[in-house]
Amino acid sequence: MKLDHNHIETINKKELSQHQADFDFLANRLEQKGNHINGLIEKLCAFQVAIPSWALGAGGTRFGRFSTKGEPSTLEQKIEDVGLIHSLTKTAGAISLHIPWDVPKDYKAIKELADSHDLIFDAVNSNTFQDQKNSPFSYKFGSLCNTDQKVREQAIQHNMDVIAIGDKLGSKSLTVWLADGASFPGQHNFQAALTNTQYSLQSIYKSMPQDWKLFIEYKPYEPNFYSTVIQDWGTSLMLANECGERAYTLVDLGHHLPNTNIEQIVSTLMLKGKLGGFHFNDSKYGDDDLTVGSIKPYSLFLIFNELVYGMENNPQNPYPAWMIDASHNIKDPLEDIIQSLEAIQEAYAKALLIDQNKLREAQLNYDVTLCQEIIQDAFRTDVRPLIAAAKIRSGGAINPIKAYRELGLRSKLIAKRGNSVASGL
Amino acid sequence: MKLDHNHIETINKKELSQHQADFDFLANRLEQKGNHINGLIEKLCAFQVAIPSWALGAGGTRFGRFSTKGEPSTLEQKIEDVGLIHSLTKTAGAISLHIPWDVPKDYKAIKELADSHDLIFDAVNSNTFQDQKNSPFSYKFGSLCNTDQKVREQAIQHNMDVIAIGDKLGSKSLTVWLADGASFPGQHNFQAALTNTQYSLQSIYKSMPQDWKLFIEYKPYEPNFYSTVIQDWGTSLMLANECGERAYTLVDLGHHLPNTNIEQIVSTLMLKGKLGGFHFNDSKYGDDDLTVGSIKPYSLFLIFNELVYGMENNPQNPYPAWMIDASHNIKDPLEDIIQSLEAIQEAYAKALLIDQNKLREAQLNYDVTLCQEIIQDAFRTDVRPLIAAAKIRSGGAINPIKAYRELGLRSKLIAKRGNSVASGL
Amino acid sequence: MKLDHNHIETINKKELSQHQADFDFLANRLEQKGNHINGLIEKLCAFQVAIPSWALGAGGTRFGRFSTKGEPSTLEQKIEDVGLIHSLTKTAGAISLHIPWDVPKDYKAIKELADSHDLIFDAVNSNTFQDQKNSPFSYKFGSLCNTDQKVREQAIQHNMDVIAIGDKLGSKSLTVWLADGASFPGQHNFQAALTNTQYSLQSIYKSMPQDWKLFIEYKPYEPNFYSTVIQDWGTSLMLANECGERAYTLVDLGHHLPNTNIEQIVSTLMLKGKLGGFHFNDSKYGDDDLTVGSIKPYSLFLIFNELVYGMENNPQNPYPAWMIDASHNIKDPLEDIIQSLEAIQEAYAKALLIDQNKLREAQLNYDVTLCQEIIQDAFRTDVRPLIAAAKIRSGGAINPIKAYRELGLRSKLIAKRGNSVASGL
Amino acid sequence: MKLDHNHIETINKKELSQHQADFDFLANRLEQKGNHINGLIEKLCAFQVAIPSWALGAGGTRFGRFSTKGEPSTLEQKIEDVGLIHSLTKTAGAISLHIPWDVPKDYKAIKELADSHDLIFDAVNSNTFQDQKNSPFSYKFGSLCNTDQKVREQAIQHNMDVIAIGDKLGSKSLTVWLADGASFPGQHNFQAALTNTQYSLQSIYKSMPQDWKLFIEYKPYEPNFYSTVIQDWGTSLMLANECGERAYTLVDLGHHLPNTNIEQIVSTLMLKGKLGGFHFNDSKYGDDDLTVGSIKPYSLFLIFNELVYGMENNPQNPYPAWMIDASHNIKDPLEDIIQSLEAIQEAYAKALLIDQNKLREAQLNYDVTLCQEIIQDAFRTDVRPLIAAAKIRSGGAINPIKAYRELGLRSKLIAKRGNSVASGL
Repeated sequence: MKLDHNHIETINKKELSQHQADFDFLANRLEQKGNHINGLIEKLCAFQVAIPSWALGAGGTRFGRFSTKGEPSTLEQKIEDVGLIHSLTKTAGAISLHIPWDVPKDYKAIKELADSHDLIFDAVNSNTFQDQKNSPFSYKFGSLCNTDQKVREQAIQHNMDVIAIGDKLGSKSLTVWLADGASFPGQHNFQAALTNTQYSLQSIYKSMPQDWKLFIEYKPYEPNFYSTVIQDWGTSLMLANECGERAYTLVDLGHHLPNTNIEQIVSTLMLKGKLGGFHFNDSKYGDDDLTVGSIKPYSLFLIFNELVYGMENNPQNPYPAWMIDASHNIKDPLEDIIQSLEAIQEAYAKALLIDQNKLREAQLNYDVTLCQEIIQDAFRTDVRPLIAAAKIRSGGAINPIKAYRELGLRSKLIAKRGNSVASGL
Repeated sequence: MKLDHNHIETINKKELSQHQADFDFLANRLEQKGNHINGLIEKLCAFQVAIPSWALGAGGTRFGRFSTKGEPSTLEQKIEDVGLIHSLTKTAGAISLHIPWDVPKDYKAIKELADSHDLIFDAVNSNTFQDQKNSPFSYKFGSLCNTDQKVREQAIQHNMDVIAIGDKLGSKSLTVWLADGASFPGQHNFQAALTNTQYSLQSIYKSMPQDWKLFIEYKPYEPNFYSTVIQDWGTSLMLANECGERAYTLVDLGHHLPNTNIEQIVSTLMLKGKLGGFHFNDSKYGDDDLTVGSIKPYSLFLIFNELVYGMENNPQNPYPAWMIDASHNIKDPLEDIIQSLEAIQEAYAKALLIDQNKLREAQLNYDVTLCQEIIQDAFRTDVRPLIAAAKIRSGGAINPIKAYRELGLRSKLIAKRGNSVASGL
Repeated sequence: MKLDHNHIETINKKELSQHQADFDFLANRLEQKGNHINGLIEKLCAFQVAIPSWALGAGGTRFGRFSTKGEPSTLEQKIEDVGLIHSLTKTAGAISLHIPWDVPKDYKAIKELADSHDLIFDAVNSNTFQDQKNSPFSYKFGSLCNTDQKVREQAIQHNMDVIAIGDKLGSKSLTVWLADGASFPGQHNFQAALTNTQYSLQSIYKSMPQDWKLFIEYKPYEPNFYSTVIQDWGTSLMLANECGERAYTLVDLGHHLPNTNIEQIVSTLMLKGKLGGFHFNDSKYGDDDLTVGSIKPYSLFLIFNELVYGMENNPQNPYPAWMIDASHNIKDPLEDIIQSLEAIQEAYAKALLIDQNKLREAQLNYDVTLCQEIIQDAFRTDVRPLIAAAKIRSGGAINPIKAYRELGLRSKLIAKRGNSVASGL
Repeated sequence: MKLDHNHIETINKKELSQHQADFDFLANRLEQKGNHINGLIEKLCAFQVAIPSWALGAGGTRFGRFSTKGEPSTLEQKIEDVGLIHSLTKTAGAISLHIPWDVPKDYKAIKELADSHDLIFDAVNSNTFQDQKNSPFSYKFGSLCNTDQKVREQAIQHNMDVIAIGDKLGSKSLTVWLADGASFPGQHNFQAALTNTQYSLQSIYKSMPQDWKLFIEYKPYEPNFYSTVIQDWGTSLMLANECGERAYTLVDLGHHLPNTNIEQIVSTLMLKGKLGGFHFNDSKYGDDDLTVGSIKPYSLFLIFNELVYGMENNPQNPYPAWMIDASHNIKDPLEDIIQSLEAIQEAYAKALLIDQNKLREAQLNYDVTLCQEIIQDAFRTDVRPLIAAAKIRSGGAINPIKAYRELGLRSKLIAKRGNSVASGL
């Protein structure tokens, strides 16, 4: 299933005149303040976020899962879903695969399918936090950190396989998230676990093609509840440094202890040229994996402030790989992702509005009141007309959620797929 | 020192035409959505927040304090400062005194002074967390909870004295914040401490004039670091119920454990008719007492959503007493308070925009995506023109921070008062 | 499978002389301090903790589950497992069923089986957090709080069915844990959700036999990640009060926000006569459901101090229902439960050693140093010989983990059951 | 005032026979398990913790301070107080000075005084978190991170002065704790602040004598409440690496976000050879600075497990500098410190009892149950007789708190000094 662009245009038409008035008013105000509207829209158009293949069906918790209908059950259908999202939003031009859930049978066909949806393959993700049928060794007590060399080798080999798959699809990076850790004091030797993890990551790093990057994710807890080997950005950075130049830290917004200042971590990593990837979601308590911007939109904006600053001022840092990493337990997964994309665009647009020169001057004058005024002026601006303008320019829908509903896409998916259930989590 | 309204008008004039264009555009859009602009402005004009007398000078931490200049050193000067804020913002029409720091010598003169600034005296605050010179008994080990009856009686008598002072000034409520608690396991008997506190509060309650209310504050920790007698809203509500109908819980935004859902507490208390008072501030870690809206503006908005809902739907709950309770460690205290007032007005205005009928319908349809859209539509709206309109109607400044600076008010205060240091914390 | 007491005696024999020396030394020291050894042992023998039927197999997280072998797959096998634990520890004389996972077919046979293992049926647990096959209505958006009356009625009826089942087995209480809540701001109306929950609970309460108790559990988050209807003890207590005299709050150690002072909550509830039930586990981050005492044994001891105090001084509070509520993700579930039971006994024994008279005196003297010395003196005492003595007197194993291993019980279970997988979570 | 050793001996005599019996019993049991009692006692005797000069008087919070009596007001008196503590405990053989509070007038006399109390001068501490009278520049907006070079230079020079003072006294290390940070988003540029801090620290590092070490402390918040430049161990380690070989991270137990796994941080730093110093205290909520071991003794034990492991297995890490960094708000400061020292010795002793070979074997077998048994066996052992034996061997008091009271030391200090108030915090 593929969206006909005419359908989107028809829907847009109904809102176009109101949009134009809103946009003109906002553009005029922003230009008065010295913004270059066209440049802003171009940046918004260029900002593309990968959708992970496992996030297109209903997620759940250890207490259960309430399924949704019309979920994709094949890689083809997953690509189709991301294609729909991208058609509507024009900000989801990539898909991130998870192996072994998404091993293609016919690589050429899969590449062509993705291409037909205007999608590229972003970072590939390995999975050593679950046991696979027929695997000789279990990851119950760790994978890359395991004290048993045979388990480590199996996990390293799996990562190599994932790289090989990604390579065939045009991916250029591997994301390693490790559940490795301990649930009880004394369960493992911290130093042995860390050292084993380092050696394993170094092996994987060395096996990557020369133009590939390695992203090392960190997380303080869950599924282990006493310690996690890569518990924070400091550990991740240390390991990335041990691996080499093309190894980076990956920040997932939900992977922090309560009250962590994440924007400062982002800023430090970009200063060091080591922020490789970024996973978006939102949370109130732990790794809640909620819709981006649904709980703490101001934090997201502050983080984007640092990302924008780094992209402008830190040539030592590569352009980060963006991905949504959320779980859709009670909303339609596609609607949930669209809301996330809107929130990301909003935070990005607002961060772009911050007058960095004025801010710098206020900072140098210790004028804290004014610093806050400058930051909040950007945040308080209603940037939706700007985002809509970017959508229109790219061929997307002015209001993607509304368009998704008017086009009856979920019903069509159900009609086509039935109550099929997504593979994966 | 009192502001001449003409000065404010002169400053407003410069921004008036731009404001008018902004306002017209916004008003038009909001009316399209079914809002009654005039009603919104009236509500904003009516919303008044008390300023506590102790927040007009620089605050500090246990590690020290960096003083600001031109701080008020007498009650008269504190009233003058609140008067300035109120002239600019027209949302600070009350002052909240702290005894023993603000005992008037000439009540008539003080009342007339406040009146001349268009200020009333809101809730009075007692202090049993510090020892006063010449007090026979120490609160080192608790005041209302103390195992020693003589200490409790001294603390009860102090509260009665505070009521008497407030009564002469026209206050109608007493706020009791207790630092009482323990810093070490075993230090006190929880049940004895709670029971003593209950009896003490009941004595204070009984001594109040018939038209007074008692506000019981809660806080999980600080200055005690193991337990606090009134640690949460549940304890406060229990005590309020034991006291009687005119005893209520007071919510201070900073007095919660990490990740607490405060809006739900607000909603529950209003359902029970027991939300008496509300202290505004913001925080990232603990009771940080930062400028309102500077850290978590979306949370503030969600809390206001519940406050607005309760004010509309819970006749069993009295109109709450609003107060800013922040500490101004590095900003000019008056600027800090003005920024807080702006953030409060903004959150209130946005909460008023939520289409409650649509929201209710979406909730009944389990349409979680739409619920979020409705809530976020209100939050994403730039309501500053609306707030400015309310200011203009009330005779305040379109942009109070800017006006404060253009009028050179801090310099004038320094010129008048010198580097005097505020009394209090 | 049932343990032959002779086998335990044989194993005990090897350790008996060393135990006797240890016990004599400790008993002598404790008697010097004024303790009555026999009374202590009697109390330890009398302390019985229920084992939930769902905790006898491997648990997991949303990221997966690593199964263990020889898990029970029928209610009969679950009773058998609890019987084994009880034979070894003599502190697990009850089983707590979860419906619909454990509906007996032949009640008489099940009661006789439990009786043969010296087990009684403690509180029964309902399940409205998952949908059951063939249920007409889904709990995806709440059960007792649901805005749809038909959903609420289905959930109420389920609870009534659970009571009926429990009644036939001799249970005398119903534990209601609700996952009901919202994952996004705006998703539901807090006041409607709370009021619906109250009415539903009142219906359930009224349907209970006259000698039954209702236990209302609270939890701040998970599986909902924005708000939970019964988020804290204050809400639970309020609901219990609305239901009636035989409705109580149930405390689960893992159901609190970071840094909550749980012992103070316990103390307050017992003062109010409203602590009905208690779920033991341990945690570092959230509701981690780890082995009791494995992370914060001192907190557990402080909680037991309040429980002991309440049991001695609060006749208004009924004897609480004790249960272990943990998840066994990487240990043998039976070993995990045995370690939990040991930790509970240890904390209880140490709490019993606190010299309450001395403590009271030190508290009245504000002698904080001495208060801490008294508390820590009890905690620092090695009470293992005391617990072993209680085991021996009751016919259990001196060292239950060791005995479990020496008797090869897991191997025997595997031999009998194969790699069967437990039903439930 | 100096303690006569005979007085201690007289007091010890009364408890000696009971101690001997307790010790013999414990020693026998421990030897059965393969421990070398003499080696354990030697290690306990050798373990010395520095007392900071500012912790000998009453601390307080921003809400006030309740003073204690007989506080030291001069450096001489502070040394005297540490001397008393050391005489009783024999584990406090060092003092840590804070400049500018403790600048000696006569270095030779001060050194001789310390020597007469058997004390050495451990790490010296600089203070750039408060303004000093007559300082030309303020640290209100940061010291080493400040955007103003003149402020940074003043702060660097202060640190150099502190080194010079320490050098004359025999200190060999400088501890830098920075309050530098921001209380509001946008207030400062993270990257500029971090870079300035790095350059400043490098200047200080370079100015140190060749045999000195630099300890860089980290802390997530307080006194700044939005961000702190050195917010975590990762930032500290990065800065230490930028400075050079003799720069290290310093861990203060209270300087972590909720639920942080501190023992893992300790382990990682020792693996990297970068754990330089360690500040002991305890806390439930934030940097509460409570008596060591009063809240989470098991965590302390787990941390000591890693410290012991590192001291045995990580020759790359220097022997860490130990210090108590607590605030004594309601206890007699000397008693509070003595309780802290006891808790430290206890945790150390228990960690020494862990059978590392058995643990390693259990870890390699993934025998999580047994790992926990081994760890808990050590923790559950009552090691007080062992600690007392170490005290006796060193000439200290069997029960130092008791001895302190029997000798009436506080009364004597009051008699000598009156109600004088300590300088400092």
